[in-house]
Amino acid sequence: MQKSGRIYLVGAGPGDPELLTIKAARLLDRADAIIYDRLVSDEILELANPFAERVYVGKSTGSHSLKQSEINTLLVHMARKHCHIVRLKGGDPYIFGRGGEEAEWLSLHDVPFEVVPGITAAAGCMAQLNLPLTHRGLATSVRFVTGHMQADAEPHHDWRSLADPDTTLAIYMGVKTMPVIAGKLLEHGLPTDTPVMIIENGSTPDQRHFRSTLGNVCDDLNRLDFDPPCMIVIGRVISLADRLSLPEAELLSESRFDQNPAPDFPDGGLRYAHTA
Amino acid sequence: MQKSGRIYLVGAGPGDPELLTIKAARLLDRADAIIYDRLVSDEILELANPFAERVYVGKSTGSHSLKQSEINTLLVHMARKHCHIVRLKGGDPYIFGRGGEEAEWLSLHDVPFEVVPGITAAAGCMAQLNLPLTHRGLATSVRFVTGHMQADAEPHHDWRSLADPDTTLAIYMGVKTMPVIAGKLLEHGLPTDTPVMIIENGSTPDQRHFRSTLGNVCDDLNRLDFDPPCMIVIGRVISLADRLSLPEAELLSESRFDQNPAPDFPDGGLRYAHTA
Repeated sequence: MQKSGRIYLVGAGPGDPELLTIKAARLLDRADAIIYDRLVSDEILELANPFAERVYVGKSTGSHSLKQSEINTLLVHMARKHCHIVRLKGGDPYIFGRGGEEAEWLSLHDVPFEVVPGITAAAGCMAQLNLPLTHRGLATSVRFVTGHMQADAEPHHDWRSLADPDTTLAIYMGVKTMPVIAGKLLEHGLPTDTPVMIIENGSTPDQRHFRSTLGNVCDDLNRLDFDPPCMIVIGRVISLADRLSLPEAELLSESRFDQNPAPDFPDGGLRYAHTA
Repeated sequence: MQKSGRIYLVGAGPGDPELLTIKAARLLDRADAIIYDRLVSDEILELANPFAERVYVGKSTGSHSLKQSEINTLLVHMARKHCHIVRLKGGDPYIFGRGGEEAEWLSLHDVPFEVVPGITAAAGCMAQLNLPLTHRGLATSVRFVTGHMQADAEPHHDWRSLADPDTTLAIYMGVKTMPVIAGKLLEHGLPTDTPVMIIENGSTPDQRHFRSTLGNVCDDLNRLDFDPPCMIVIGRVISLADRLSLPEAELLSESRFDQNPAPDFPDGGLRYAHTA
C-alpha cells in the first residue's frame, strides 16, 4: 500500500463562519492542503492555515470547472503529496454534497478518510428565519430533496410520496426546476395555498428571502429575480412566520453585528420581501 | 414591555463536543444561565461559563422531570432574571427538538430569542460510520421522521409516502415503535431485505451500532438489547457499509484519541456488532 495522507471530508455549513463546527475549524487550522467548492465563503477560508496549498474545484450551474471524476483523481493525488488534507464542501458533505462518491473513491484507493458533518443549508436557513423544520401539529417529518436534474430530464422523484401535507419539504438546487416541482406537487394533491419560503444566500450577509404559495411561487421567483443557490422550503411550518419571524434588523444574528459593524450593512441588514 | 434578557435556542449536536458549532461554544462561554436537556453531555457543559446558573429540564422515556409547559414558563422567568440565557438541546432545536414550541411561547411573551442550528443526530451518526444520507443511484432524498407516539396510539404518518425505496429514512425515537414502523413499511411495499442501521449513543465514546434488514430488525433489536435514544436509518445507502465502514479502531475520530487517552477506552473503542 502506497504511503498516503488522510483526507477529511468536511462540511462548511450554510455560509456563516460561526456555523462551522469546532472540529471543522480545528482541521482547517492544521491542514496542509485544502480543496474547496464554490459555496465555501472567503470568511471560512480565512480560518484555515495560511500556508496550506489551496485548490479550487468549484462548480457553478452549467459550467463545471472540474468534473467529479477529476476531483476524485485530484484527491488521491493530494493524499500522496500531503499529510493532512481537508476537502471542504458547503453544507453537509453527505446531504447532496456528493461526499459519498468521494468516500467510495478514496476507499477504493486505500486513502484513509474521515467525515465531519456540517449544518445543512435547510437547517441553517430556517434557523436564521426562526422557522422550525418540524413542529407539533404542522409537520411530523422533514424531507430534503434535490431539484437538480440531468439535461432535459425531470427530477426523478415519487411525486405522490412528496406531496404529503404533514411533511416539510426542503428543496436543494431547485430554482430552475421549480415550475416542474410545483406543477407535480399540485397535481398530486398539495393545495395551491401551501406556504413556501425561498431563501437566497442563506445565513450570509447577502441573505434575501420571500414568502409565497405553491400556486404563486414560480411567478414570484421570476419577478424577484432570485438566483441559485436558493433553498426552497414548502409546508405548513412556513405559516409560523407570522408569529416567529422578527423584523429584519432582528433577523441579523448578534455575531454579525460583532464582526461587521454598521458600514458593512448600508441597507440596514437583511432584505425582506414578503409577497404571500 | 418588561425588561428581558435574550434567549438562545442552541443545538448541541449529536454528542461529540467537537461537533458543536463555533457559535454555540461562544454563546455557552458567555451565558449567565443554561437550561439543558438529558441528551446534552457533561463534556459539552464543561465548555460553558462555570459561573452560569444551570437548570436541568431533562426528560427520559416515560418520566418527564419537567413538562413542556413548565419549561416554557421557566424560560420566560429566566429571561426576566438574566441577560444572556442559553437553552441547550441535543441535535438541532428545530428538528424534533420542540424548539418551535418554545420559540412561539417566547414570541408571545415578548422575549427576544435567536436560534442556533446544530448537527442533527442522523447526520452525526451516519458521518461517524462513513455512510452518506443521499447518494447518486441509491437515494435522491433523505427524510427525518419521528417514531414517537402518544400513549396507545400509532405514530401518525402517511405510510405509503414513507415506503419510498429512493429515500433514506432516518427515524428519531423509534426503538419502542419499531415493530409498528417496520410492519407498516413492509405492508406498503418496501422489501424485507431493505438494509437498516441502528445506532445507539451516536458520536459518543459509547456508540454501538449494528446492521440488519427491515425483515429482521425487530428481532435483532430485542436480542442485542439496544436502548433509546437510538437512530434508525433505513434505505439502500446502508449497503455502502460493505465498502465504506472501516474497522472499529478507524471509526474512532482522531479528536477522541487526542482528548481521551487509552485508559478511557478499555474495550478498544467502538463496539461493532454486524448482524446483517
